[in-house]
Amino acid sequence: MQTENKNSLKIISLGGFGQVTNNMFVYETQDEILIVDCGLGFPTGEMPGVDLTIPDVSYLLPKKKKIKGIVLSHGHDDHIGALPYILPQLGQIPIFGSRWALALAKGKLKEFNLKASLEEMKQGKTISLGKFEIQSIEVTHSIPETLHLVISTPLGIFYHAADFKLDLSPAMGKPTDQTLIRQFGEKGVLCLLSDCLRSEKEGFTPSETKLEEMFEREISTCRGKFFVTTMSSNISRLKQAIEVSLRRGRKIVLVGRSVDENVKLALEMGYLKFPRDVFLPPRNLSRFSPSSLTLLVAGSQAQAGSALEKIVGQEHEVKINPSDKVVFSTDCIPGNETAIYSLIDNIYRLGAEVSYVDIQSDVHVSGHGQAGDLKKLIELVRPKYLLPIGGNFRHAVAYQRIAVDLGYRPNDVLLAPQSQTFEFLPNGQAITGKPIVTKTVMVDALGIGDVGNVVLRDRQTLAKEGIVVAIVQVDLQRHELIAEPEIVTRGFVYVHQAKRLLEEAKKEIAQVIARQKVAEIRLLRGDLQEMLEKFFFSRTGRQPMVLPVIISV
Amino acid sequence: MQTENKNSLKIISLGGFGQVTNNMFVYETQDEILIVDCGLGFPTGEMPGVDLTIPDVSYLLPKKKKIKGIVLSHGHDDHIGALPYILPQLGQIPIFGSRWALALAKGKLKEFNLKASLEEMKQGKTISLGKFEIQSIEVTHSIPETLHLVISTPLGIFYHAADFKLDLSPAMGKPTDQTLIRQFGEKGVLCLLSDCLRSEKEGFTPSETKLEEMFEREISTCRGKFFVTTMSSNISRLKQAIEVSLRRGRKIVLVGRSVDENVKLALEMGYLKFPRDVFLPPRNLSRFSPSSLTLLVAGSQAQAGSALEKIVGQEHEVKINPSDKVVFSTDCIPGNETAIYSLIDNIYRLGAEVSYVDIQSDVHVSGHGQAGDLKKLIELVRPKYLLPIGGNFRHAVAYQRIAVDLGYRPNDVLLAPQSQTFEFLPNGQAITGKPIVTKTVMVDALGIGDVGNVVLRDRQTLAKEGIVVAIVQVDLQRHELIAEPEIVTRGFVYVHQAKRLLEEAKKEIAQVIARQKVAEIRLLRGDLQEMLEKFFFSRTGRQPMVLPVIISV
Repeated sequence: MQTENKNSLKIISLGGFGQVTNNMFVYETQDEILIVDCGLGFPTGEMPGVDLTIPDVSYLLPKKKKIKGIVLSHGHDDHIGALPYILPQLGQIPIFGSRWALALAKGKLKEFNLKASLEEMKQGKTISLGKFEIQSIEVTHSIPETLHLVISTPLGIFYHAADFKLDLSPAMGKPTDQTLIRQFGEKGVLCLLSDCLRSEKEGFTPSETKLEEMFEREISTCRGKFFVTTMSSNISRLKQAIEVSLRRGRKIVLVGRSVDENVKLALEMGYLKFPRDVFLPPRNLSRFSPSSLTLLVAGSQAQAGSALEKIVGQEHEVKINPSDKVVFSTDCIPGNETAIYSLIDNIYRLGAEVSYVDIQSDVHVSGHGQAGDLKKLIELVRPKYLLPIGGNFRHAVAYQRIAVDLGYRPNDVLLAPQSQTFEFLPNGQAITGKPIVTKTVMVDALGIGDVGNVVLRDRQTLAKEGIVVAIVQVDLQRHELIAEPEIVTRGFVYVHQAKRLLEEAKKEIAQVIARQKVAEIRLLRGDLQEMLEKFFFSRTGRQPMVLPVIISV
Repeated sequence: MQTENKNSLKIISLGGFGQVTNNMFVYETQDEILIVDCGLGFPTGEMPGVDLTIPDVSYLLPKKKKIKGIVLSHGHDDHIGALPYILPQLGQIPIFGSRWALALAKGKLKEFNLKASLEEMKQGKTISLGKFEIQSIEVTHSIPETLHLVISTPLGIFYHAADFKLDLSPAMGKPTDQTLIRQFGEKGVLCLLSDCLRSEKEGFTPSETKLEEMFEREISTCRGKFFVTTMSSNISRLKQAIEVSLRRGRKIVLVGRSVDENVKLALEMGYLKFPRDVFLPPRNLSRFSPSSLTLLVAGSQAQAGSALEKIVGQEHEVKINPSDKVVFSTDCIPGNETAIYSLIDNIYRLGAEVSYVDIQSDVHVSGHGQAGDLKKLIELVRPKYLLPIGGNFRHAVAYQRIAVDLGYRPNDVLLAPQSQTFEFLPNGQAITGKPIVTKTVMVDALGIGDVGNVVLRDRQTLAKEGIVVAIVQVDLQRHELIAEPEIVTRGFVYVHQAKRLLEEAKKEIAQVIARQKVAEIRLLRGDLQEMLEKFFFSRTGRQPMVLPVIISV
């Protein structure tokens, strides 16, 4: 199956197929490369201290000259957020995207003092990059101006459907032009790459319009301040909350950097149209009647240090009081459940009301299409092959079931448990491509990719077991200690309660030196490490990292 | 509000109200204490290396003589699992519970070479412990012989309803005798302590009987090995899976310690009645036709090191192959979502089928009652006060809404955001009691409670930032280094790529010594630490723990 054909086209996922985030797809022919998206990902619990992850572009580094451009499907971080980290590695490449996606990308690049050539895409316009011709269709999602891409290549037409739902009555922008999609489909699409995140759920994802009714209901029973938290990039959701609030005679307070920046940018660029005087700064709010205020607050995922987390922790000048209400118009990003629920508990402890999906299922609707939306797109595009993206492997499998329901054969849906490459051959066949190695590239503060498995493994051990450093000054000729050994521990035992344990460990060190008569630092270090590991394990059941430091005179 | 009345009765939660686990409740009069449950809890992400948590019994230590006994509501770990850690602290106290709960408790105590006086409780029997008289009602839950406790005290009758649902057709045991509950209610119950975990959900929790149909459906489309994973203590669920499998001509393989132990104990004690020859050991299974095997596998929460995790990771003699099917007949315990979903993805990658609640909502039913069950119990008991237990604060608030729906006043539902004590006065009033201080007691290997905030804070820093140890031999009189400083790091940077950084750090150390001419170890240590922290932060953006070790000659 794994051949290399110079007239074929490869599609490679540099973030890894089976991942929701880290979106970065390579379309590669012999001479040219087109990139779609350049998104970041979130660290898992196994990556302590890591700020974010980015796709692994080492595959591209020897092929920089082939790269014709990067096309952005939309402005979410998991589609554009890796640009500041990756663009400097790839050199000057033109970036294409909708006006809103480019505005957000520009902001991100500016933070890193980076510039790039940015060119706007619009429905009806064609962009030619080498032999790739790209047209776009504006679709509905949870951020303005999300695009589907129709990519004509020498091998055929690819329909790249990153995140979307088919919302017939979006809160901003127009419904997707399904006729246009069908027209592209009629040209014959070789492969549909499709969002599959919510493929496990039957039916259609509800329309954003429903949220307005929800906000009306929630605000009508709120006697105090009305707090709304959602993904800060969800401008249409914020627009709805603002409109409902203004109708109720409330002023708007933006709390937290991401909400503040997104709303201000949307106002500047005309996506939101409200007079400036409807906004109040988040200071001295006690001057106002609580029932005259709506607060749009950043931190819907209970991120540490976010505005909402600080407010609930009573470490913010904005306060939550009884009779206030907090609406969580959001889903849990997997991994954040515990933090979000703990935040909700604590808001209740402050005496306020909380509305969240578990008790009011309609306070949020997803930006991703369910099985109904996904089926509808397949019917419009009628591709030869389907390649599920933007979901985990189980979502891809559920997407396969959907396609099979529509009459496709299982093999028409491209699933490869391990490989990150699919190859489209001149004869029209798609095969699993030669595997390429991609790793998780971690960003930790200023370091990009320098935290790898060694550092992570150490961090995990340090986290679970702590560390013991034993400083041993020794005369290696006489096999005698020159001074009493010093033992420093962190994260292992509570030192004030463990004095005896550490004293005994010192005696054991002295005994090893006297008894084993080792004359080489390296060997003594090994002996002491082994002895101390055994000693601490037998006494505490724990396995701290043990670092003997030998100073010989 | 916070008075102390010597004729009052206090109810104290030593695990903390607003917690799902760590169940341990104290009923205290002036002279006597009755304890209900003694359960463990699970560490959160902020507790790296911690194995489990237990309730804080420091309040009881000066009052040991008052303790009349511990009554166990049922055999789940979060109700009995802290016994081996806590019993030795409290001395010889008789323990009461159902036959099955006691069998499990005995097993746990035995692992720690502990013995206790265990006395069986039965519906219809009264146990007198000082002035406390306790009767029990057998209720339905997700483990056999779960009890509700009717506790008569000098202050009135308390109805202690730990975990339950009102299952009208349980898979094992009888439906709850609601007439009996009503009769107790008619005597006048002062306070109902009630499970509230699923109070956010409308309607009744489905019956366990439904699971049999589910297993029938799932097994009928399984061409290979049929894997079932559920909470290993859920004997009735395992019984259903076994019965369905036997009807289909499959043999049963128990995989993993907890499943093995629970099933064998249930067979010995007669809770399960199957001939021994229906069970096969988990060895050389390739000798059998896959379609003749059902495997009951431990590790439904994707615990690291569990049988299921090893099987999926291909580190177990049992293999998962295409055409096999794995049924996750379980909920996610909050915090385990990411691990469980990752396991599901990886099973799909092996080519097998998976059934889990997101795609087959009926593969699991909870053992906890929803709003309907909870309402029904309130109507049967008709207490004066209600005290929600076994849930987080948001669940307690949702329970309050249920009670208010039934005509109670909000104040009849005892919610105290901070306090762990409620006091019932001789005049029949309940008030929030004087707060008592309880902390989270962490068990880490052999240490009980020695890991506290200091150790945890260090572990978190070590996990996120790593550690730098700088060994500096110095002549403090001459302000000269005696040898080149040694720098050891773990979890901070990848040392092979950071040689230059560490060399520069050594030069900075030499400069500090030469320039600052400090003559005291303590001061020099402080100076070096400050300098190195700043240096590493400016170069890497990271803030490792910095430990300078000064050796002066």
